[in-house]
Amino acid sequence: MAIEGSTTQKLNRRLRLGMVGGGRGAFIGAVHRIAARLDDRWQLVAGALSSDPERGRLSGEDLLLDPARLYADAAGMAKREKRRKDGIDAVAIVTPNHAHAPAAKAFLKAGIHVICDKPLTTSLREAESLAKLAKDSGLIFAVTHNYTGYPLVRQARAMVAEGALGKLRVVQVEYAQDWLATKLEESGQKQAEWRTDPARSGPAGSIGDIGSHAFNLAEFIANDEVEALAAEAHVFVEGRRLDDNAHMLLRFRGGARGMLWCSQVAAGQENGLRIRLYGEKGGLEWQQENPNLLIHSPLGEPPRLIRRNGAGADPVANAASRIPAGHPEGYLEGFAQLYTDIAEQVTARIEGREPAPFSTLVPTVADGVRGVRFIEAAVRSSARGARWLEL
Amino acid sequence: MAIEGSTTQKLNRRLRLGMVGGGRGAFIGAVHRIAARLDDRWQLVAGALSSDPERGRLSGEDLLLDPARLYADAAGMAKREKRRKDGIDAVAIVTPNHAHAPAAKAFLKAGIHVICDKPLTTSLREAESLAKLAKDSGLIFAVTHNYTGYPLVRQARAMVAEGALGKLRVVQVEYAQDWLATKLEESGQKQAEWRTDPARSGPAGSIGDIGSHAFNLAEFIANDEVEALAAEAHVFVEGRRLDDNAHMLLRFRGGARGMLWCSQVAAGQENGLRIRLYGEKGGLEWQQENPNLLIHSPLGEPPRLIRRNGAGADPVANAASRIPAGHPEGYLEGFAQLYTDIAEQVTARIEGREPAPFSTLVPTVADGVRGVRFIEAAVRSSARGARWLEL
Amino acid sequence: MAIEGSTTQKLNRRLRLGMVGGGRGAFIGAVHRIAARLDDRWQLVAGALSSDPERGRLSGEDLLLDPARLYADAAGMAKREKRRKDGIDAVAIVTPNHAHAPAAKAFLKAGIHVICDKPLTTSLREAESLAKLAKDSGLIFAVTHNYTGYPLVRQARAMVAEGALGKLRVVQVEYAQDWLATKLEESGQKQAEWRTDPARSGPAGSIGDIGSHAFNLAEFIANDEVEALAAEAHVFVEGRRLDDNAHMLLRFRGGARGMLWCSQVAAGQENGLRIRLYGEKGGLEWQQENPNLLIHSPLGEPPRLIRRNGAGADPVANAASRIPAGHPEGYLEGFAQLYTDIAEQVTARIEGREPAPFSTLVPTVADGVRGVRFIEAAVRSSARGARWLEL
Amino acid sequence: MAIEGSTTQKLNRRLRLGMVGGGRGAFIGAVHRIAARLDDRWQLVAGALSSDPERGRLSGEDLLLDPARLYADAAGMAKREKRRKDGIDAVAIVTPNHAHAPAAKAFLKAGIHVICDKPLTTSLREAESLAKLAKDSGLIFAVTHNYTGYPLVRQARAMVAEGALGKLRVVQVEYAQDWLATKLEESGQKQAEWRTDPARSGPAGSIGDIGSHAFNLAEFIANDEVEALAAEAHVFVEGRRLDDNAHMLLRFRGGARGMLWCSQVAAGQENGLRIRLYGEKGGLEWQQENPNLLIHSPLGEPPRLIRRNGAGADPVANAASRIPAGHPEGYLEGFAQLYTDIAEQVTARIEGREPAPFSTLVPTVADGVRGVRFIEAAVRSSARGARWLEL
Repeated sequence: MAIEGSTTQKLNRRLRLGMVGGGRGAFIGAVHRIAARLDDRWQLVAGALSSDPERGRLSGEDLLLDPARLYADAAGMAKREKRRKDGIDAVAIVTPNHAHAPAAKAFLKAGIHVICDKPLTTSLREAESLAKLAKDSGLIFAVTHNYTGYPLVRQARAMVAEGALGKLRVVQVEYAQDWLATKLEESGQKQAEWRTDPARSGPAGSIGDIGSHAFNLAEFIANDEVEALAAEAHVFVEGRRLDDNAHMLLRFRGGARGMLWCSQVAAGQENGLRIRLYGEKGGLEWQQENPNLLIHSPLGEPPRLIRRNGAGADPVANAASRIPAGHPEGYLEGFAQLYTDIAEQVTARIEGREPAPFSTLVPTVADGVRGVRFIEAAVRSSARGARWLEL
Repeated sequence: MAIEGSTTQKLNRRLRLGMVGGGRGAFIGAVHRIAARLDDRWQLVAGALSSDPERGRLSGEDLLLDPARLYADAAGMAKREKRRKDGIDAVAIVTPNHAHAPAAKAFLKAGIHVICDKPLTTSLREAESLAKLAKDSGLIFAVTHNYTGYPLVRQARAMVAEGALGKLRVVQVEYAQDWLATKLEESGQKQAEWRTDPARSGPAGSIGDIGSHAFNLAEFIANDEVEALAAEAHVFVEGRRLDDNAHMLLRFRGGARGMLWCSQVAAGQENGLRIRLYGEKGGLEWQQENPNLLIHSPLGEPPRLIRRNGAGADPVANAASRIPAGHPEGYLEGFAQLYTDIAEQVTARIEGREPAPFSTLVPTVADGVRGVRFIEAAVRSSARGARWLEL
Repeated sequence: MAIEGSTTQKLNRRLRLGMVGGGRGAFIGAVHRIAARLDDRWQLVAGALSSDPERGRLSGEDLLLDPARLYADAAGMAKREKRRKDGIDAVAIVTPNHAHAPAAKAFLKAGIHVICDKPLTTSLREAESLAKLAKDSGLIFAVTHNYTGYPLVRQARAMVAEGALGKLRVVQVEYAQDWLATKLEESGQKQAEWRTDPARSGPAGSIGDIGSHAFNLAEFIANDEVEALAAEAHVFVEGRRLDDNAHMLLRFRGGARGMLWCSQVAAGQENGLRIRLYGEKGGLEWQQENPNLLIHSPLGEPPRLIRRNGAGADPVANAASRIPAGHPEGYLEGFAQLYTDIAEQVTARIEGREPAPFSTLVPTVADGVRGVRFIEAAVRSSARGARWLEL
Repeated sequence: MAIEGSTTQKLNRRLRLGMVGGGRGAFIGAVHRIAARLDDRWQLVAGALSSDPERGRLSGEDLLLDPARLYADAAGMAKREKRRKDGIDAVAIVTPNHAHAPAAKAFLKAGIHVICDKPLTTSLREAESLAKLAKDSGLIFAVTHNYTGYPLVRQARAMVAEGALGKLRVVQVEYAQDWLATKLEESGQKQAEWRTDPARSGPAGSIGDIGSHAFNLAEFIANDEVEALAAEAHVFVEGRRLDDNAHMLLRFRGGARGMLWCSQVAAGQENGLRIRLYGEKGGLEWQQENPNLLIHSPLGEPPRLIRRNGAGADPVANAASRIPAGHPEGYLEGFAQLYTDIAEQVTARIEGREPAPFSTLVPTVADGVRGVRFIEAAVRSSARGARWLEL
């Protein structure tokens, strides 16, 4: 097998992780656990895994957790873990959206670093208040816009920053799925239920669930902010209460124009997150379903296939890679990269040193706020006939 | 070589074609000539090939045309060809946009069928007046929205019409190029010159040149009309007078929502015309750069690769095909299909019979009007901050 | 539409073409006619279109040919066309394989240039005798290994010749179809009948029909000859008399090693002609089903996508191109390129000048002999348990 | 995010794993560790990580292992772990090839289950003796032909077994890389050094390193054995002692014919493991670099894109999947699947029950023997001018 310079990873320590949410029937909790485990930097030791105590207990058993460290709720968990000598170093919050903010606040108050799933909150006001608290606390607050953990996404960002495309002109981003093409929420599918329920998801459906990922990806790679948007959201499945498709026009501060499309009713699409960026000097193209490839088209030259860990791959990408080019890494590895980077940040704090290069690329609470701001603007713009709104 | 049931094509007659425009230095004229020739149904016999008489003469010589049938202008050509016993059966008008209408009118008045390049005219008023004249004349008036000649585009249209996708929900269409990413019009390149000049191109740049193709393709396949659009056009190359990029939101009469993107500054894109349609029961995907493939995704089933003339190809597609599956047909064949269909229409008139099935799929003057309407609406919407405008 | 420097093609003259074979029910004859017509350098004026006189007459009518120039057989046609002042400049021989040699000889003797379909003959002895006659005659003798007409195939050859890959090491070539996966020859399909009949096809089935194309392509691009091969041919469809699948090991004179696979029973394959070449300094990859793309992988650098007429395309490729990058050209255009190049060769003879650069890339009778030599060696090697045989 | 029925994984216990080899500078050891960790069924607790004691000690520190469970060699480790109450449940042997057999024997004798990297041994005699020992011991002996852990590889196997392709006719398999296109072994790269050294790798280079994977994959999916092969191995890089490229003809017991190509000098190829199978009723295509896609071409129907965990995916594939369709899983997940299946086998032994369905798909010592038999036959056939040899 081809590999250059691979070596045994040196561990300084394994950090202790707690989790809020992610019990039986949850999806993203299991992903967080694999992600935390993959690079061996974290050990799950405590949890408030469900709002239903019995389900929480059983979920903890499933994971072979110490029953003494299974808690009924986030508040209690924060308080008690804070007091333990072997208390958790960080908590992962993976509940439905509406429960993110209260849980996060409890841990911040207890002085525990926070890893929070996206969207950060279900209202902008709540997001801003949380961000203030986080800032004042001085703690690490990561938001798992996980697609930023893909090596070639980081390379794309670096290439744009280094001017490989020249001044940006056009950004086309989309995230298309089809899992809600029918009224799945009436079938008892738990994921579909809460994601289409305004009380638990917030004011947006597809916009919050996946549009916010597309938005984050666009700003991350473009190294720029969306200044204004005009959105047309729509509900295609009769009786659904939240949008299942949205189209948006985007204006970036730096002058680029763009489009964003998110859909959960696009038959045949699985997790079609794709981005294309065009500047004065070239173009870039990346898609999540084949994440090991980045296509770079310098204007007037043949397009180049940059492959993860292969020829033309950048140090920032290689640092987020585990295995040789041609052996595909995927979604879990990209997600794991955030956990590994967060571990590095926490460890650096503990050891009183600067974190390793690139480990600070992980989205923060500020990115989380921006995501919520995007959701609110999109929902309002759509309600006003696609009027341009500033973010 | 694989082929089933291929046979020598039976010709009834070859029709006589005249051409206006298309002299030395032109591009699309040469394409029309190959297209007319490919299936052997037309013979080019007369022309007013350039507004510059000397260039017109030389161009006629280049093509081995009879000098007696080289004319200084469309009006004279129409008059004189009308009088000949062996006069042309139809004329192809392939001048810059502003000259389409006067030429077309001259031939309609002379009772000669018209094949006109797109966009039909540079103003809606002129388009409507031309359409009226065409209608009153009873003559055949084809507009070369040539992408409708691709076999699998026709199949896509048929599948939508037959309900393979169920009720349409989303239409994503785009046409991206990069040939105007720099200020090519200042280099002496003739194509770039007139296409960026409002006097010859009309009020739109990329919107008229390629956006109109995307629009036509979307309506053709969707079997539906765009009811309203909101557009954001932009000029990225400093000093250029017409848009080189545009983004649009679309609402279809039947309830579908969509986006249209056209760009001539998208580095790395050549002729990236792509369309995706999603309905209640499935999705379809086609792109011009690989036109022999249509991807059909029935909801909840594996996507299927339908290949030109291959398994799953429809009679309407096979009728527009020349060679076996796996031997690619391309742009010229798709363009030729329009000429072959028009020949069939003309021949059927001459022979007093119904034209063969599918030959009437060729876009008409009504489609041409619609294209101009689209251009005007997009330009106006953009001028008003992407306000929704009805078409 | 993107295009640089397009212009009206200047014709010196149209040449007169005759055809032997290609009547009703034939396949490749129709392809030759479109190919001859596409670039407007040839006019079909005479034919001996079928061995069945009535079918020949009807086929001539179908094509609107002058009845006086419809002949019962090749010998008579050659004699009479030779005597006409407006006699044909060249003849295209598109009969089943066994009839190639007698027809070609008749025209060579009449001093008429020959364009012959492949394989040249059904035996090596006959091929060599024909080649000698052709050489002695001084006439142009083209063999339509048509894949050499694809622009990027020519570019691949040029790149290898110029050392872009360094010394060649490995050549992987294949041609896979599935149209004979069942016993189609018993269904009355004419193409299947003669292609599986030793009397008309010669000693090989898939090896002669498509393996010979793969072999020619490999030698053409590699700029090298296969020195020896070891073959394993097989009949999968019970009762078929000629191979429908073959695998071969190849040794090239220059030291490269390779494999050749041809199959007419590979379910899902249409015309899967693909080649990959690897040398000390890089690799190349091309496939017929997407012929507008050539992938070049310089060792240690990202692979590059070279697109027909696009960035990185070579003059030899652009000279064989009609339309801008991104507008696909296909099989018919590649085939047409041979006819256009032959027209240029014939015209240059008539005008007493050197033919234009690249027009002499068309395969000749020598390539035809080589193809027959390949077929015989493969059949013999397979009969001897894949023993290595020199070519 | 799309997911159906995801749930917290229920753990019965975590098993204890030891490792031989895999210290600093090793590659595959790190992969085994991630694979073992990913699904949380194993905990690494002991190791003899290097033949160099100091390197072994440091490597153990790197991994935070208990110093008391770091051993100087496999033999000592086996003996002492056997005596511990909390001794390892299984050992992973990840040394260079020549050291596999002695280590494996030591653990078998100690009654400890074995997970061994491939190729099993460097000689057939040794392989057979080891297999006998394993069989007599009754212990679990897994060989990490890891590509069998990919979900869609398992689905391909199941589809062939269930007759989706009908009787198999053709198998095309290849594994192409380029990392040894230059004389990397002289650069100090440790991986290149031992893999090109007959003393440590055995009699074959590319054949043993990657050809054996291709061979295993072909037999695994075909549900059949290669009966005979004819091989042509070659050394392209001057001075190298083991083959860096090989071509083979294959005959399967069931009547299918095939080709195998392996190369480590194919410029531009990273880990190009690809397989295509064709039967009377259809074809299948899979490639490792995009492992989430399986193309199924039923004869006479459009090809279908089967995606991991998506529509058309089989229970055997879904059982080896972690996350929803469209979120790519990769090499590490495929490798992890073997560890998870082995954990299930071991756990079932401990619990006195049948292992879960599909968990016994993991290759065993018998597959390991077959791999060595393949290597020896290929090397011998090549030495005899590609003579057919039975396996």
